[in-house]
Amino acid sequence: MKIAIVGAGAMGSRYGYMLHKAGNKVTLIDAWKQHVDIINKEGLTVEENGALSKVKIPAMLPEDAKEVPDLIILFTKSMGLEPMLKSIKNILGKNTRVLCLLNGLGHNETIAKYVDRKNILMGVTLWTAGLAGPGHVVLTGDGSLEVQNNDPSMKVEAKEICSILSQAGLNAHYSEDVLFSIWRKACVNGTLNSSCTILDCNIKEFGELKEAPQLIRNIIKEFAEVAAKYGVKLNVEEVAEGIEKIYDPSQAGAHYPSMHQDLIQNHRLTEIDYINGYVSRKGKEFNINTPYNDLITDIVHAKEQLIIK
Amino acid sequence: MKIAIVGAGAMGSRYGYMLHKAGNKVTLIDAWKQHVDIINKEGLTVEENGALSKVKIPAMLPEDAKEVPDLIILFTKSMGLEPMLKSIKNILGKNTRVLCLLNGLGHNETIAKYVDRKNILMGVTLWTAGLAGPGHVVLTGDGSLEVQNNDPSMKVEAKEICSILSQAGLNAHYSEDVLFSIWRKACVNGTLNSSCTILDCNIKEFGELKEAPQLIRNIIKEFAEVAAKYGVKLNVEEVAEGIEKIYDPSQAGAHYPSMHQDLIQNHRLTEIDYINGYVSRKGKEFNINTPYNDLITDIVHAKEQLIIK
Repeated sequence: MKIAIVGAGAMGSRYGYMLHKAGNKVTLIDAWKQHVDIINKEGLTVEENGALSKVKIPAMLPEDAKEVPDLIILFTKSMGLEPMLKSIKNILGKNTRVLCLLNGLGHNETIAKYVDRKNILMGVTLWTAGLAGPGHVVLTGDGSLEVQNNDPSMKVEAKEICSILSQAGLNAHYSEDVLFSIWRKACVNGTLNSSCTILDCNIKEFGELKEAPQLIRNIIKEFAEVAAKYGVKLNVEEVAEGIEKIYDPSQAGAHYPSMHQDLIQNHRLTEIDYINGYVSRKGKEFNINTPYNDLITDIVHAKEQLIIK
Repeated sequence: MKIAIVGAGAMGSRYGYMLHKAGNKVTLIDAWKQHVDIINKEGLTVEENGALSKVKIPAMLPEDAKEVPDLIILFTKSMGLEPMLKSIKNILGKNTRVLCLLNGLGHNETIAKYVDRKNILMGVTLWTAGLAGPGHVVLTGDGSLEVQNNDPSMKVEAKEICSILSQAGLNAHYSEDVLFSIWRKACVNGTLNSSCTILDCNIKEFGELKEAPQLIRNIIKEFAEVAAKYGVKLNVEEVAEGIEKIYDPSQAGAHYPSMHQDLIQNHRLTEIDYINGYVSRKGKEFNINTPYNDLITDIVHAKEQLIIK
């Protein structure tokens, strides 16, 4: 299958590498020129269990992409999605399926401005990956993903794509309710990412705070009220207990969430507008009070202004 | 007049020094032994416009205070108030007036557990002072204070105390509504102190944030709803505009609020429970929703746990 990975950072490179290895015709598309250049010159460096290999996969800048693929997998940062879709509109063919694996909420609405609804697939990935530098991806651990078609008529096509992904070892499952999974994952990010960023702590430290149990429930409650407007039923207590399992250092406890890495460690803008900020914005639209998410969003934006000068 | 300054830190030392110079019989009472010892050995060092002087004023630990004064001026930290009142109960005479000049809310309720209501006076001070070290107070700028009796029958006595304070240059005014002034000052602390602590910034930096106007109004609105239960009418817009004047660096803009100094700079517990935390607590009692103050209180307590180990 002709597959374009659009947004070929850590996760995009992992997916691209695995799909390439399984025999698909993969192209990596990314706006980071140095990354693209190194991949084309030296190959993608793949680091797995300490072993390094160089893999030849074509890479290009978005504006250089010309060939229409069968499948596009989106892996940009949330705020990069819309500019990226504009840049690659030449390769959005009539039958090109577009699978969105970004973190956060509301991306289907953005994609629907550029892609026919019948071609849109939404997913949630539980794989992890890191970037050690331009052209150098580090693979750790196992994972899986869930995929579902946006348009009810496209179930067979969605299952075919799951099968292509699984043949590459990506462990893809067809989901009957991917929106539920997307919201549940957003609850994890909307509690741990933003709190660890505001408090400058890791997940384990956050979990040990006296205030943590009430804090995450107050946040999730507002997520659940907004999610209900989309037909997604989140059980606050169930979601909270799922999050509390992650505090364990043998899980992700020692980890600083990506938002902390972005803002506190690397002084970059965060994805807050696609997590707590989305709940806050949609709350206003639906006339649902979301004071906790309003304030969290404001505090993170305030920190962005103070830290990124 | 026999006056005991109870809590003789920066502000207490300033008041003690000025009242002593005006001919009152002042005693400084404080739980910080090193501070007390140096004052007794070398005198209180007063630094004013760069000039140093040593002033002999008796100082003692709370448990050593025996002589019942005519007036006690309370200047402890909020969380130190109740333990201090317990320690000095021997000097709380039948006719000893007790003037509370602490920052924060709810102190009159605490004092009323130890002092006959007719002896309680509440006040708000706009003086500033710093401590350069034990026994060393630094005086800067001018100030004033407002005072009012808790018990309506004690107006004459309250005015007499204002006059004693003004004779010492402290510029005291009798207030017909000191509770209003206390709440208005609490709004300043409840917006700037807590926000600058959470965001690790000074007042000027906070004032420049896009989020600042809405943030302070959301906080003040909840203060106003709770204050109304005490018969205090706060105009949210008026209070907010008053706070916005302080952003000017020629005012307090370059200043880090006391809560920032306590927690971020000196790794000490904050007075949050007597500011935003009071509004949050009383909100629950009165069935008023105070999500912004709930979350701010939680975040500051969480930071205390992370920073003070």
